[in-house]
Amino acid sequence: MKWYSNKGEHSDVVLSTRIRFARNLKDYPFPARLSTVEKEKVNEIMRDIFLAADSGEKLTYTEMKALSSVAAVSLAEKHLISPEFASDPNGRALLLSEDEDVSIMLCEEDHARIQVILPGLALEDAYEKALKFDKALEEKAAIAFDRNLGYLTQCPTNLGTGMRASVMLHLPALAENGVIARLAATVAKLGLTLRGVYGNTSRFVGSLFQLSNQVTLGISEQAAVQNLNAIALQIAEQETQARQALLKDDAFIDRIWRAYGILTSAHMIGCDEFCDLLSLVRLGAAQGIVDLPLETLSRLLIEMQPATINAKQGESLSQRERDVFRAEAVKKALSRKQ
Amino acid sequence: MKWYSNKGEHSDVVLSTRIRFARNLKDYPFPARLSTVEKEKVNEIMRDIFLAADSGEKLTYTEMKALSSVAAVSLAEKHLISPEFASDPNGRALLLSEDEDVSIMLCEEDHARIQVILPGLALEDAYEKALKFDKALEEKAAIAFDRNLGYLTQCPTNLGTGMRASVMLHLPALAENGVIARLAATVAKLGLTLRGVYGNTSRFVGSLFQLSNQVTLGISEQAAVQNLNAIALQIAEQETQARQALLKDDAFIDRIWRAYGILTSAHMIGCDEFCDLLSLVRLGAAQGIVDLPLETLSRLLIEMQPATINAKQGESLSQRERDVFRAEAVKKALSRKQ
Repeated sequence: MKWYSNKGEHSDVVLSTRIRFARNLKDYPFPARLSTVEKEKVNEIMRDIFLAADSGEKLTYTEMKALSSVAAVSLAEKHLISPEFASDPNGRALLLSEDEDVSIMLCEEDHARIQVILPGLALEDAYEKALKFDKALEEKAAIAFDRNLGYLTQCPTNLGTGMRASVMLHLPALAENGVIARLAATVAKLGLTLRGVYGNTSRFVGSLFQLSNQVTLGISEQAAVQNLNAIALQIAEQETQARQALLKDDAFIDRIWRAYGILTSAHMIGCDEFCDLLSLVRLGAAQGIVDLPLETLSRLLIEMQPATINAKQGESLSQRERDVFRAEAVKKALSRKQ
Repeated sequence: MKWYSNKGEHSDVVLSTRIRFARNLKDYPFPARLSTVEKEKVNEIMRDIFLAADSGEKLTYTEMKALSSVAAVSLAEKHLISPEFASDPNGRALLLSEDEDVSIMLCEEDHARIQVILPGLALEDAYEKALKFDKALEEKAAIAFDRNLGYLTQCPTNLGTGMRASVMLHLPALAENGVIARLAATVAKLGLTLRGVYGNTSRFVGSLFQLSNQVTLGISEQAAVQNLNAIALQIAEQETQARQALLKDDAFIDRIWRAYGILTSAHMIGCDEFCDLLSLVRLGAAQGIVDLPLETLSRLLIEMQPATINAKQGESLSQRERDVFRAEAVKKALSRKQ
């Protein structure tokens, strides 16, 4: 079972939690300064260490050049790799667990990017899980570390803990109320970043937001995780209150049901519209208006992304064919449980 | 069973057929020149004649002042009486058959307006049925008739046959193609009128149109009926061809299914929007895309009109309450048969 098919804590607002460690071998320059052959050497060292780690996870090693570009973009849509990593396969490899909750990018910006992603708000669990791989790495290899700067990374913004912690939040009510920009400004003062996952700053497709720690220097990993956790809980509480106010309005209930009607009936549907309608239905499901499991909706959100559809269909569909496929798949997924 | 719960000939395009005779007693002035007491006298004469007629119909006699204004407007929404007749109850009465296929307005513009309405294209049947009442009237009373002018009516446009024949057409494809104005100009040259049933000339709500004979002088009733029938069949054929062309486009199929999705899911829905969405779904049902009986859709179109909802609910609902009631009723009616 993929991680995104499960439901986690506070999943009415928090879709997922992600922890990522950036680590580099002391004896090798950063990937940007390595040849493809040298990168492959680094990847092999990393592969052997991580596959041998006592993590309880069964990892699969894949050289990125063995994947089609569609398969690579699909991994990016699932947030398992970065779009940048997907764009160039040379000298790059990926370690991926069966549940897709652990993914380790080798020779992206840094030698290793250890990532754990879990459903709901689960920062402690994700942190502990990522730590196992980090410890395995530190036991077996010399890591680039400076007493004053902490972990050394190619990009200075990662210096220090080398850790990025983030949660994906579904904030349809706060977005509806137009308070996202103010909220983003507030959390920025607390060392965090809030940004839309899809769309741009003028239009947040699907009302999905990523809240992540920005400061990696002068703060412990534990403190950063606790800080993010506390603020995520506060935002979740604000969103919950905003939802309750919105749902007093029949017209908003109507929008939720119309979104449901279109998702269960349309003959074709584009990705952005799908995300926006799913956002409304997810809100309805989270608040007990629409009887649908949140896991189904979270899974759809990932599976209905363009490259993920193409990867699953095993061919490059035209946009129109994909829109028809998406509509059919969504209809099927949402009708099954009713 | 009300007439509109049944399916008739060519019902994919023709919703209903209506025949109306305007008749006046020779010995009384037109209603506009009668006092309320005199009108009541005329109504009693008419009542006794029509109730005794060997028509095979069971008519009920109702004085309009015995009805609430909501009930009266509801009758107008069902096209059983004219809006003008509904607006002033004084000295007016109605004879109505159980199926609501025969309605006789007493002391509207003329002493008697005999109307028969049947599902689908059924001009001959409707004409024959109306004729029975006309004959009963002519046998028992002296009718205002002039050898040169024919039947005398208050409005000169009805002089001659005193007959108005019409069919209600559902022309979503021709409306979509923007050819209604041209079509209306063409049929005008043939002595017919084509006009939108709901909305106005710039926007035809629900794509419903009435095609009726305009000429009543110098033409026999039979010729008028045959003329209308032939042109209705031609328009139906044009509409059918336009539909087949439209339905080759996935995007149009999508619009039909989205309309279905909203109708089966919305929490509230206004009358105009309902008519427009129902129009798309009716097109889908007529062309075998959506599996719904046309009778259900025709019945809904009448039952979901504002005053008809209020009349059925037995109280004057606010517009919002009515929109919620309509959405619930539509959802129930369309889901039942799936």
